[in-house]
Amino acid sequence: MSIPTLDVIGIGNALVDVLSRCEDEFLTREQIDKGAMTLVDEARALGLYDHMGPATEISGGSAANTIAGLALLGGKGGFIGKVAGDQLGDVFAHDLKSLGVQFQTERLARGPATGRCLVLVTPDAQRSMSTYLGAAVELSPNDIDAVEIASAQVIYMEGYLFDPPHAQQAFYEAAQAAHDGGRQVSLSLSDAFCVERYRPEFRHLIETEVDILFANEAELKALYQTDDFDAALAAVARDAKIAAVTRSEKGSVVVAGAEQYHVAAEPVAQVIDTTGAGDQYAAGFLMGFTRGKDLAQCAALGSLAAAEVIAHMGARPEKNLKTEAEARGLL
Amino acid sequence: MSIPTLDVIGIGNALVDVLSRCEDEFLTREQIDKGAMTLVDEARALGLYDHMGPATEISGGSAANTIAGLALLGGKGGFIGKVAGDQLGDVFAHDLKSLGVQFQTERLARGPATGRCLVLVTPDAQRSMSTYLGAAVELSPNDIDAVEIASAQVIYMEGYLFDPPHAQQAFYEAAQAAHDGGRQVSLSLSDAFCVERYRPEFRHLIETEVDILFANEAELKALYQTDDFDAALAAVARDAKIAAVTRSEKGSVVVAGAEQYHVAAEPVAQVIDTTGAGDQYAAGFLMGFTRGKDLAQCAALGSLAAAEVIAHMGARPEKNLKTEAEARGLL
Repeated sequence: MSIPTLDVIGIGNALVDVLSRCEDEFLTREQIDKGAMTLVDEARALGLYDHMGPATEISGGSAANTIAGLALLGGKGGFIGKVAGDQLGDVFAHDLKSLGVQFQTERLARGPATGRCLVLVTPDAQRSMSTYLGAAVELSPNDIDAVEIASAQVIYMEGYLFDPPHAQQAFYEAAQAAHDGGRQVSLSLSDAFCVERYRPEFRHLIETEVDILFANEAELKALYQTDDFDAALAAVARDAKIAAVTRSEKGSVVVAGAEQYHVAAEPVAQVIDTTGAGDQYAAGFLMGFTRGKDLAQCAALGSLAAAEVIAHMGARPEKNLKTEAEARGLL
Repeated sequence: MSIPTLDVIGIGNALVDVLSRCEDEFLTREQIDKGAMTLVDEARALGLYDHMGPATEISGGSAANTIAGLALLGGKGGFIGKVAGDQLGDVFAHDLKSLGVQFQTERLARGPATGRCLVLVTPDAQRSMSTYLGAAVELSPNDIDAVEIASAQVIYMEGYLFDPPHAQQAFYEAAQAAHDGGRQVSLSLSDAFCVERYRPEFRHLIETEVDILFANEAELKALYQTDDFDAALAAVARDAKIAAVTRSEKGSVVVAGAEQYHVAAEPVAQVIDTTGAGDQYAAGFLMGFTRGKDLAQCAALGSLAAAEVIAHMGARPEKNLKTEAEARGLL
């Protein structure tokens, strides 16, 4: 088994976020599930965009956000995901490459445009997402290169990847390639509705392939169909090798067999936009993990990264947190 | 002369801003004139983009920013400018239309892509711009509809419009159409280097066609080739009917013949990004002007709008200032 050249490779839906503020009434009028990620077709995406206020375009995609965050913490990341050969595809590729992230997935030459996620931020800083997958729907096992996968210590996959038809297979092949190469596999559950769509698949995957699971409280409860957080935590401690569970302002809990670590949330002066909080928690956690830090330190790095991203609009960090993490002895 | 249906129609380069933070060393290395707007060709734009860090895409263009700001103050605006039929053109059109701005200019079907302005913001909040005009270069007199022009109380033109080859002619025809319709003509000098490029043209225009001139201190000094601000102010008082001159933290001075008004800058807790300060000053000023406010009130509205935009990244307002302006008795 060779020395890994990358810390983490993310696999996910390659999307550009179209970010706009709105009032709650807008969500009601447009029948958007508040706080959730809803898949929409192109016609709905265009219609909704027509009704939205002025927006800002920022590269997004859950796993891609995580890898961008990892790079800003000083980690070496790669990303696998599908964009088209269009202007938004250029934007997505630029924003990863400019952080030193390896991004080699072949662009979709014919077919849908680069996918977009219409992110509506309400005055309470909650984000509600309507995703048109576009080119991301064409990610397939052909895009998974076993050698590339095995070049990273850990692969990180987003649960949202279960939505595009061929990506699930790509997902399994990537997990296989990682384990064959002696690497580790991590998964984010992404969204409670996503868990509802793929509960048996996720449960099976967690029991058989996942070394590190990321979930928030709602997703974990959805996974085990319980309202009892402690019961869900006990269940995941049984099924997953390591599970890092975020609980918003209550911080996070990491379970690994009989071990359990409770780590506080990082204080934030004003929460502006919660988009990407989970993505950046995973970025911090994996940065610590690939640097051999203990699980409590990994969680503290996760809290630090999540706090930065919720203090401004957009799901990608604006600040390089490496220096701060080092000053605190976390890196 | 019919009742105008619009308050202001802006004519300018239709651009999408590609906004990124950088250190001063980056400007030096890339030989970018700090604080200026430099025109670049496509190859240079692509090369520079390759070297830039992660960016955010936001609709821009000086006059378009002004019209967007006017709309957010409750004004009724229109915009004339050229984008291509591409994704960034869609973004530009959406962001104006979603504010209720009339934007009917035919898109460029064949030719360059929608123009981009690469905006680099240094830690001192100064912005340095490299503009690839793209489709904006094709704006021509054919895009000026005399009836549309005469439907607005005031037309607002950016000095940057002197760069594309046919736009200067469009500019004169628009001024003519406005005056024929009994409307007023305003002009922003845009940039000191732009003044250097077109000094005689601007001087002639101001003496013959311009009812309201917007300039900052550096642009005014460049226009009259003097380092003496008072001399430049005396000169413009002689040449222009009304001139509103911005002086950053020193506020602004409005001269109209023998009248002179000095209006303070609006305090800002932290200046984050000065991009669009002049554009929003003009938005506030013209909003007041078209509502029949006196010149000092117009300038105070300009200060209010400029202060909002320099407190965050990007050249378009994030906040609707109408309520605040009304509460202060400015509208």
